[in-house]
Amino acid sequence: MLLMAPAAAGELPVPAILLMLAALLAAAKIFGELAERIGQPAVLGELVAGVALGPSVLGLVDPAVPSVHLLAEIGVIILLFQIGLETDLRRLLKTGGAAAAVALVGVLLPFGLGFAVSSFLGLGHLEALVVSAALTATSVGITARVLSDLGRLQDPESQIVLGAAVIDDIVGLVILAVVGQLVAGAALTPQGVGVTTLVAFGFVGAALLIGRIVVPPLFRLLGRIGREHTLAAMGLVVAFLTAVLADRVGSALIIGAFTAGLVFAPTPHAHPIERGVTRLGHFFVPIFFVSVGAAVDVRAFAEPRVLLIGGLLIAVAVIGKVAAGFAPFWFRGRKLVIGVGMVPRGEVGLIFAQTGLAAGVLDAGLFAALTLMVMVTTFVAPPTLKLLLGADPMADAPDRDGAPAQLVNDA
Amino acid sequence: MLLMAPAAAGELPVPAILLMLAALLAAAKIFGELAERIGQPAVLGELVAGVALGPSVLGLVDPAVPSVHLLAEIGVIILLFQIGLETDLRRLLKTGGAAAAVALVGVLLPFGLGFAVSSFLGLGHLEALVVSAALTATSVGITARVLSDLGRLQDPESQIVLGAAVIDDIVGLVILAVVGQLVAGAALTPQGVGVTTLVAFGFVGAALLIGRIVVPPLFRLLGRIGREHTLAAMGLVVAFLTAVLADRVGSALIIGAFTAGLVFAPTPHAHPIERGVTRLGHFFVPIFFVSVGAAVDVRAFAEPRVLLIGGLLIAVAVIGKVAAGFAPFWFRGRKLVIGVGMVPRGEVGLIFAQTGLAAGVLDAGLFAALTLMVMVTTFVAPPTLKLLLGADPMADAPDRDGAPAQLVNDA
Repeated sequence: MLLMAPAAAGELPVPAILLMLAALLAAAKIFGELAERIGQPAVLGELVAGVALGPSVLGLVDPAVPSVHLLAEIGVIILLFQIGLETDLRRLLKTGGAAAAVALVGVLLPFGLGFAVSSFLGLGHLEALVVSAALTATSVGITARVLSDLGRLQDPESQIVLGAAVIDDIVGLVILAVVGQLVAGAALTPQGVGVTTLVAFGFVGAALLIGRIVVPPLFRLLGRIGREHTLAAMGLVVAFLTAVLADRVGSALIIGAFTAGLVFAPTPHAHPIERGVTRLGHFFVPIFFVSVGAAVDVRAFAEPRVLLIGGLLIAVAVIGKVAAGFAPFWFRGRKLVIGVGMVPRGEVGLIFAQTGLAAGVLDAGLFAALTLMVMVTTFVAPPTLKLLLGADPMADAPDRDGAPAQLVNDA
Repeated sequence: MLLMAPAAAGELPVPAILLMLAALLAAAKIFGELAERIGQPAVLGELVAGVALGPSVLGLVDPAVPSVHLLAEIGVIILLFQIGLETDLRRLLKTGGAAAAVALVGVLLPFGLGFAVSSFLGLGHLEALVVSAALTATSVGITARVLSDLGRLQDPESQIVLGAAVIDDIVGLVILAVVGQLVAGAALTPQGVGVTTLVAFGFVGAALLIGRIVVPPLFRLLGRIGREHTLAAMGLVVAFLTAVLADRVGSALIIGAFTAGLVFAPTPHAHPIERGVTRLGHFFVPIFFVSVGAAVDVRAFAEPRVLLIGGLLIAVAVIGKVAAGFAPFWFRGRKLVIGVGMVPRGEVGLIFAQTGLAAGVLDAGLFAALTLMVMVTTFVAPPTLKLLLGADPMADAPDRDGAPAQLVNDA
């Protein structure tokens, strides 16, 4: 399953795409630097750059052009691979109970509140279902990038957010598959839902188990014959293959890439691979975030109905996830940070909306309202997290923008 | 004007392209390391990997898929940008007379010999013209990469080869434009040829002049507000824009990228930009060379007529360029190195062949014979240069494969 809806636009000639990439990179870097100047994470600047360059404003970047879409997907794959490389699985599993509680409440509460609001607004059952499902999403990409921009990826709160966002992403895929079947007119069986869920979680477990047996000897061999950039390239090859495998078994490309990072994290090759991949990330990752921004159509927000429904959905979206942050009542850290970290819906929320639109379940107004909800939750979380977490302890790290800061992996 | 013929294949889904890229990267790195193990430049291994993965053997990589084609074009743009960044314009201009002599003889001699052989074989005028034109090409990408792999980019012989290859590339574009007009049935006017020539050479001069005035103050400003990876990204933006500009005025993307490198070379930002771009090159550059290899159809070589004509063309191709190396009779270096450095036709020769095939001037047999000539000249030059230049003084440089070695730029 891809992160964004299948591209509809045709392919452009190479020079036209190079122009698009030049505009995209220049805007991403300039807006990213400006965002940091006013004390915000660079990713916020990239999202704003995307809105400005996108089809609904300047029209300089079209995220639906196939090769721009491909570069964006490679960007989010590289980002999640990097995040995986920096993640200590044992520490992540230690936060497992708290993360599961946050994820569970963070899915159930927004779904329930969303269904209630939808019924209050007089929407049909299927419409209400799609709207509520879109509210359950969390964008692990945006949240992880913000925490990384702020140099806070190793905080206990961040580890819980990361774990919960990954669980949430897997749950989101299950919900999307089920909603897709319902929208297509299929009957809902508990057995079908069970199998889909099992496959989604089973993939990560199986890939970790097999990867931890196969990868170390393979890379010990490569480490003897190859130079650092060969190792980095081969690490990327494994990430691509794991991503495709995850997609084939019904999970998502980014879950596969994250799992590949987890496999390498405890090996001695994690650092050389991360160094090589980080430089690539400086090029590819902004393409993803600018594309997410460019997918926003600002023209739809002029209608009062869109603003009214959108406003209600935003309230539900924020309340549901912030409350979920308080679900692990036994955790003695800053629960508000966890809740705010779960708020951005990002590209995951957009796929739900696009699935509903493409299937004819949502009309243009409801679609625009969901887009508004996605946009506001995505744009509000980074500055709020920045406010909550205060000064950035890694402010002078040279590799921060577009890539996780290089923190010591204690595995 | 693009380096390779416009893509004919359709776009594939993202997971299919990721699989293709995984196969491509893994094969490029493994074959590249193996080539170096047996004392050959890494680029030879990448070309062989391309032939093996290409449609005519394993069918795992199709260089005509639009986004693979785009990534390959970005690869050769990055390569020529890197080469430009390392080139001292004053030293290149000092070799100007010798380079011009090599380029001039290296175009006239293969063209004349090719036309004679074609007439001897009983080909028509238009056929003979396309075949002879294809013989004039030099692949600056392959030659520069081999010299860089061998750590010899700053040798006087290499500087002459580089200068001659760039002149040759510009002349080649003029010939291609003229042949294209003739093939399309247009009349040939000296005025038309003159204008095409002027535009091609004028672009490099004008870009250098304007670039040297505009770029330094712009990047002094950026250098104050941005970090290293921002500078590298903005350098790449300038390279993309200059490449597109070159393409728009009728020159080539790679000429524009090389010119952008020349503009940055004497500035203090050349090194940070090169460091950032080199890591990107490790990913993108092999995609280009594997694509060149994958464009070779090995099945066509079974026919005796193809082998006969191909053999004659190979002889003419090698004799013409090696003799051109001796054209600057006053140069006291190793003239054989210069001649051999000019031999590979690479992707530039392939466009001539593809232009002729697409216009219906060449039949499948002649096309295959030209492809054989391109392949043999491209594959023979790297090991011969290696033999002539002996041991590699930069053998342990970590950043060699896929990128020029970091040599001191004395400007």
